[in-house]
Amino acid sequence: MLTFNRHSGFEIDRKLEADSHPICWLGLCELRLIDDRRWPWVVLVPQRNGVKELHELTPLDQTMMTFETNEVAEALCAVTDCDKINRGTLGNIVSQLHYHIVARNAGDPNWPGPIWGYGVREPYRGEERAAFCERLKNQLAQN
Amino acid sequence: MLTFNRHSGFEIDRKLEADSHPICWLGLCELRLIDDRRWPWVVLVPQRNGVKELHELTPLDQTMMTFETNEVAEALCAVTDCDKINRGTLGNIVSQLHYHIVARNAGDPNWPGPIWGYGVREPYRGEERAAFCERLKNQLAQN
Repeated sequence: MLTFNRHSGFEIDRKLEADSHPICWLGLCELRLIDDRRWPWVVLVPQRNGVKELHELTPLDQTMMTFETNEVAEALCAVTDCDKINRGTLGNIVSQLHYHIVARNAGDPNWPGPIWGYGVREPYRGEERAAFCERLKNQLAQN
Repeated sequence: MLTFNRHSGFEIDRKLEADSHPICWLGLCELRLIDDRRWPWVVLVPQRNGVKELHELTPLDQTMMTFETNEVAEALCAVTDCDKINRGTLGNIVSQLHYHIVARNAGDPNWPGPIWGYGVREPYRGEERAAFCERLKNQLAQN
């Protein structure tokens, strides 16, 4: 999968920006790592200002979303060898559309419950975060 | 949106079947109402035996999923006039692929947290459930 730069004019929500780190830019989405090492957890943020719901995207963007989320889910499976992928779009706190993809394993924090709203965030150490982002980016580049 | 019958040969997980009621059949998915009146909450179950992850579907089925989930989300918005749609695929308990779409409102149970794993289910009364399914089906038929 080819990667790109951030679309000019796209503005990301400040809380979303503060809670995560950019990994790379896909055709439609900015791919970011949530800064919580309890689970391998990324978000895809479509670079469309003002959109809150998946069904508000144009049909072409919906198709792009489908393609990009599936590519990322496959890559996350490959680099983590996880038991299960969890996906979600909630947006009850940050309304800007963002699509969560999380690698889950039996016995991980709050398993088999959801990750959202559970416990206290554990930020990555800098090197660990950079290494994970690099692995995921390399995996995406192979698809 | 046209509705169909259940695909012959498709087998739905027993727990998923026990926890929900069929609303109608779309081209790919069986649309079911989760029997919990705390939130308007449906699941779309692709009629493909043995599939656990969205990215395991064929590209055509992925596109169908995108179309059907967006149609259902729009219809659910229209009949509930909700503040937000929450979507998710978890599958940590029931592994058969099923896609949740939930209408959320500020102040509803566990708002702004997720619905999964929260509190105790409140089953619908029979008439209330039938009326809701009918409204959603009529709304889908208009699209």
